[in-house]
Amino acid sequence: MFEYKLIHRDPSTFARLGTFSTPHGTIETPVFMPVGTRGSVKGILPEQLRELGTTILLANTYHLALRPGSQTVSELGGLHRFMAWDGPILTDSGGFQVFSLATLNAVDDDGVSFKSHIDGAPMRLDPASSIKIQEELGADIIMAFDECASLPASPDALERAVERTIRWAGACKAAKVRTDQALFGIVQGGLNIDLRRQCLDALVSIDFPGYAIGGLSVGESPDDMATCLRDFAQHMPENRPRYLMGVGRPLDLIRAVAAGVDMFDCVMPTRNGRNSFAFTDAGFVRLRNAKHRLDEKPLDSNCDCACCKNFTRGYLRHLFLADEMLGPILVSLHNIAYYHRWMRRIRQAIREGDLSGLLRDAEIRARRDSNESEASQ
Amino acid sequence: MFEYKLIHRDPSTFARLGTFSTPHGTIETPVFMPVGTRGSVKGILPEQLRELGTTILLANTYHLALRPGSQTVSELGGLHRFMAWDGPILTDSGGFQVFSLATLNAVDDDGVSFKSHIDGAPMRLDPASSIKIQEELGADIIMAFDECASLPASPDALERAVERTIRWAGACKAAKVRTDQALFGIVQGGLNIDLRRQCLDALVSIDFPGYAIGGLSVGESPDDMATCLRDFAQHMPENRPRYLMGVGRPLDLIRAVAAGVDMFDCVMPTRNGRNSFAFTDAGFVRLRNAKHRLDEKPLDSNCDCACCKNFTRGYLRHLFLADEMLGPILVSLHNIAYYHRWMRRIRQAIREGDLSGLLRDAEIRARRDSNESEASQ
Repeated sequence: MFEYKLIHRDPSTFARLGTFSTPHGTIETPVFMPVGTRGSVKGILPEQLRELGTTILLANTYHLALRPGSQTVSELGGLHRFMAWDGPILTDSGGFQVFSLATLNAVDDDGVSFKSHIDGAPMRLDPASSIKIQEELGADIIMAFDECASLPASPDALERAVERTIRWAGACKAAKVRTDQALFGIVQGGLNIDLRRQCLDALVSIDFPGYAIGGLSVGESPDDMATCLRDFAQHMPENRPRYLMGVGRPLDLIRAVAAGVDMFDCVMPTRNGRNSFAFTDAGFVRLRNAKHRLDEKPLDSNCDCACCKNFTRGYLRHLFLADEMLGPILVSLHNIAYYHRWMRRIRQAIREGDLSGLLRDAEIRARRDSNESEASQ
Repeated sequence: MFEYKLIHRDPSTFARLGTFSTPHGTIETPVFMPVGTRGSVKGILPEQLRELGTTILLANTYHLALRPGSQTVSELGGLHRFMAWDGPILTDSGGFQVFSLATLNAVDDDGVSFKSHIDGAPMRLDPASSIKIQEELGADIIMAFDECASLPASPDALERAVERTIRWAGACKAAKVRTDQALFGIVQGGLNIDLRRQCLDALVSIDFPGYAIGGLSVGESPDDMATCLRDFAQHMPENRPRYLMGVGRPLDLIRAVAAGVDMFDCVMPTRNGRNSFAFTDAGFVRLRNAKHRLDEKPLDSNCDCACCKNFTRGYLRHLFLADEMLGPILVSLHNIAYYHRWMRRIRQAIREGDLSGLLRDAEIRARRDSNESEASQ
């Protein structure tokens, strides 16, 4: 259980093909995890996710702890039963949302006091309570409670965040009771590679079955993030999965894979889908755009998802203008399909020993798209 | 084409089992048609509708004429291609929505002038333009443009509406060009049986391949509607389908079937579903109710839809409280499944010659539900 198997290495990058085993199944990596923030991938049924190629989901501890509460989820049979998803699930620690969504009262050396963004109720999250909540939720992979500094951050703030993150990681491991969940440690340190490596070394000496890279995609440029990953990810333990939290665009994903990363989650496919914004091989498509009014083409002619197989762009545009739920549903479906297909192509390229070719094409396409895009992000 | 075949008669009621053939397939009647107001059954994919047992859909001419426009639908391949629904479709005439949604400027003997409820644009609908729009949309069954008086209405208003409805029905038939669409006439006349029979006679002498009962469920009590149907529907032509427009609750449906009606449409399953309100054999269930917080039961243990097979009431309640799209989707799915299952049981009871038994049980259950219901409508 919780074993990372390295299947194949790409010869010219740090990319790796592997598998990771959990109580609810073994996943192939590199993998993208759709986000079911409150225990639901917005608008998509679990059976649809399976069909789209989803093998593992993420759910947010902070949101579920606030509503309906981790004990309610536990009494309703745990997160797998609750969501009706019998594959692997990962929960984050709640730390990121506490820092980004809640009204903070105080961060101290032991944890964080804050007010719920729903009803203002005073709450506290610390290593022990985060682990308790995640044990009640019952995901296969749970995350250490960390301090995530938004970038740019002062060297002092970064160092303090790293120091707390290391101490809290140890406290999380000590608080953990269940043996059927893998606790991953999270590396912080901003764009400072030395600081990240110190953090990593400390976490490795505590010993976790997986390691995550936190604190990226929090204000820095995509290129700065890519540079940081290129210089850092290769130093992470070979025999453990490497998870880049909350990232990102398709280009960010392949760059990170080339740096040696195995796991990703991001709300982009679903959040963009709800806003009529679609990922396609031919570039971004904004379906509200007037030019799609009489467009009989499918959203993405390379895609065989339920959206692209059946509907015209003209119809999709109509759904968004008429505020019909089916628009957000269909484009979310497509975007998830697109992300999974992208990851399949990435895995295939690693298998064939040519990830650098695919990466080069992706860089060229991204530059072309940013010049020609009908809608900037 | 457009042939109604009477398969079987229930011995103790006016109920009939039949089939009706259209260019996109033959439907079994009595049948319930889910409503795809703007060319989409809210939140539900066509492939899901098929799985739920939907055989024919309704779409609203008024809404589609306003947005995206019937010509746009036509240029995008017609309504079947637009919605990606290759089964039969029925469009209404737009009349009902003009009278209920738009700001009316004037109703005259030739048609209705009104302002769009979307942008206030001045518009006009009359028999010829309603038929033109419905021909551009391209449904299998189209409806005559009628005047629908809301109840209670004065005898004068009812008679004037009937007189116009008859004249407009003739004008609709004269305006019709396409031969691959069946135009149904609509009977008006409120609760006045004599007036309805006069209207029917006039329509029959014009001759339509199907007849609808309009102007019910527009303010009168369910019992008054049932009495009207019981006294009227039996007089409609035997060799034509009989369609009761915009009705209704499960009890209304079986009462109307017992009176001899074959076709129904109603937004109740989807509109109620979006509001957390579910139809089950054990009565109405309002999923927001606090008593479902830790409820591990399925919504309806007699149902094998994707909602009831997979999810607990506690989870469904969470989805509604957290404002997650999946709640409205799942309960809409279930309610449509419930309506189709109800129609299957009705057809089975007719086949077995015992619709009156099923009707009696439904009346008893409805009285019990109205006494015990956890939430009134």
